[in-house]
Amino acid sequence: MEELHSWNDGPTKSAIVDFVGRATEQVPPEERVAVFDNDGTLWCEKPAYIQLDFLVRRLAEQAAADPALAAEQPYQAAAAGDLAWFGDAVTKHYNGDDSALKVLAGGILSAYAGMSVEDHADRIKDFFAEARHPSLGRPYTACGYLPMIELLRYLETNGFTNYIVSGGGRDFMRPVTPSMYGVPPERVIGSSVGLDFVDGELRTTATPEFLNDGPVKAVRIWGRVGRRPIFAAGNSNGDIQMLQYTAGGPGPSLGLLVRHDDAAREFSYTAGAEKALDLAESSGWAVASMRDDWTSVFD
Amino acid sequence: MEELHSWNDGPTKSAIVDFVGRATEQVPPEERVAVFDNDGTLWCEKPAYIQLDFLVRRLAEQAAADPALAAEQPYQAAAAGDLAWFGDAVTKHYNGDDSALKVLAGGILSAYAGMSVEDHADRIKDFFAEARHPSLGRPYTACGYLPMIELLRYLETNGFTNYIVSGGGRDFMRPVTPSMYGVPPERVIGSSVGLDFVDGELRTTATPEFLNDGPVKAVRIWGRVGRRPIFAAGNSNGDIQMLQYTAGGPGPSLGLLVRHDDAAREFSYTAGAEKALDLAESSGWAVASMRDDWTSVFD
Repeated sequence: MEELHSWNDGPTKSAIVDFVGRATEQVPPEERVAVFDNDGTLWCEKPAYIQLDFLVRRLAEQAAADPALAAEQPYQAAAAGDLAWFGDAVTKHYNGDDSALKVLAGGILSAYAGMSVEDHADRIKDFFAEARHPSLGRPYTACGYLPMIELLRYLETNGFTNYIVSGGGRDFMRPVTPSMYGVPPERVIGSSVGLDFVDGELRTTATPEFLNDGPVKAVRIWGRVGRRPIFAAGNSNGDIQMLQYTAGGPGPSLGLLVRHDDAAREFSYTAGAEKALDLAESSGWAVASMRDDWTSVFD
Repeated sequence: MEELHSWNDGPTKSAIVDFVGRATEQVPPEERVAVFDNDGTLWCEKPAYIQLDFLVRRLAEQAAADPALAAEQPYQAAAAGDLAWFGDAVTKHYNGDDSALKVLAGGILSAYAGMSVEDHADRIKDFFAEARHPSLGRPYTACGYLPMIELLRYLETNGFTNYIVSGGGRDFMRPVTPSMYGVPPERVIGSSVGLDFVDGELRTTATPEFLNDGPVKAVRIWGRVGRRPIFAAGNSNGDIQMLQYTAGGPGPSLGLLVRHDDAAREFSYTAGAEKALDLAESSGWAVASMRDDWTSVFD
C-alpha cells in the first residue's frame, strides 16, 4: 500500500493491510469504526504529557497573579519551573503515596474553573501556536507520528471513521485534532471536567467528569459512538480494555500496539505498557516497533 | 422550498428558509450543526412516551417470571395493564410527592441491568417491529412527524449535520433513528444508565448516568459535538436552555418550537411547554403550529 509509505514491509504492515482488505469486503462502511489512543499512540508523550506543559504554564500564570497561591503547591513548583516536582507526584502515587498527586489534581482541576469553553479553546490554540517540544526541536503540532497519520488516512480512504479515545483532556485535544489528524471535535473522546450552563454560556467547572482510561474507554466508545470498533490502536495498559472490546466482535478486527523502542528518534520505554505488551501475543494484537516498523517517526 | 412540501407558506416556513439561506452563505459546513429534541418534536409523545410502553412491557415480563416481584409496584401495575398508575406517579411528582416516582424509577433503572448492550438493542428492535400507537392506528415507527423529517432532509441537503438531543433513552432511540430520521447512532444524545465492561462485553447497570434535560442538554451538546449549534428544535420547557445556547452564537441561528394544537390530527396540549411557549416571542424563536403550519402530520 503506497499510502503507508513510512511503514517498512513486514508482519505488522501486512497485518494492517490484510485486515483492511477483509474489512472492506465483509463490513459495511458505517460499521468500520476505528479508535486511536492519543498520548504515545498518535503523538509523543515523553518526557511529559503535552497537556502537562500547558497546565504548568497556567499554574505559573496563576501564581504570578496571586502571591498567596505562589506560596503553595503545585503553583510554587510551576512558578519555579520545577518539573521534577510534578514527576515526583506521579512516582509517589505509584508507590502508594497520593498526597502530592491530590495537591496536583486540585490545581489542575481548578486551573480553568469559571472560564467559557470558547475562551479555554482559544488559550489552547495560542499554546499550540507557540509551544515546542523540549528536546525534539519541533513544535508540538509536529509531534504526531507520521506513520500513524498515514494509517488514519489509509483507513479513511477505505471507508473507516476514525475516533480518538484518549486519557488526555477532550477539550485540550479538540482545537488541534482537525489539523493534525483530520479528526473533527465530535470524534474526540477524552477525559473531562463538568461544565455549567450559566447565562447562556458553557463554563468549565472544577468537578471531574470522566477519567477516560481503562474500562472507561470501552464504556465511552459505546456512549459516544453506539458501535463496537473493528480497529483499535494504543500503547499502554490503559488501552487494554479498548483493545479487548474491539477484538470481541463477530467479524474482522485488529488491535495494534505502538512499542516505544527507538531512543535515537523518539524515546525508549515500557513503563506503563508492561501488561499490554505481555498480552499482545496471546491476544493477537499487532505490535508496531517504532525502531523496526517505521522508516520515519515524524514528518 | 419544495423539500418542505408538508409546510404551509407563512412566517414559520419563511423563517426556516431565510435562516438556511443565511447559514449557507455565512457559516462553513462543519459549523452547521442542528439539534432536535425527539419526544414531541420529532415523534409523538402522547398519550405516553413511547419508551414507557416499552418499559411497561418489560416490567410485566419480569412480573410474569417472578411472583415476588408481581406483588410489588411498579410490576403489579405493569402486569395489570394499569397505565393510570404510571401517569399518577408523574402527577404526584409535580404535586410534590415523589414516592411513586421513586418506585417507578427503581423499576425502570433495573429493567435491563446486567444485559449486554447488543441484547438490549435487539429487544428494542423487536419492540419497534411489532408495537403500534394505542390511538393513532399506526406503528410507532410511523409516528415521526413528516414535516420535521422533511426539515431534517432539507437541512442535510444544505450541508447541516443533524443531532438528536432528547430526554429519552440514548440506547432506546438508536436502533430506529437511522431508518426513521437518517440520524446514525453516534449522533444520538439522550439519557442513559451507566455501563460496565465485564469479560469483554458492555453490560447495562441500574445506575443513572445522564438525565438529558434542561441545562444538561446544552452541556452534553458540547461534550459530544464540541460546537455550539446554529439550529435547535424543541417543544417543551426542557428544551429552553438548548434553544438559548443555540441563539447565543455570533452568527445566524434559529430556534424552533413545535406547538401541539391539533387535537384532530395529533394531540392538543401545552402542559410542560408553558414556559417555553411564553419565551418564544421575546427570544425570537419560530413556532410551528401543528394545526396551521403543517399540511400533513404523518406520512
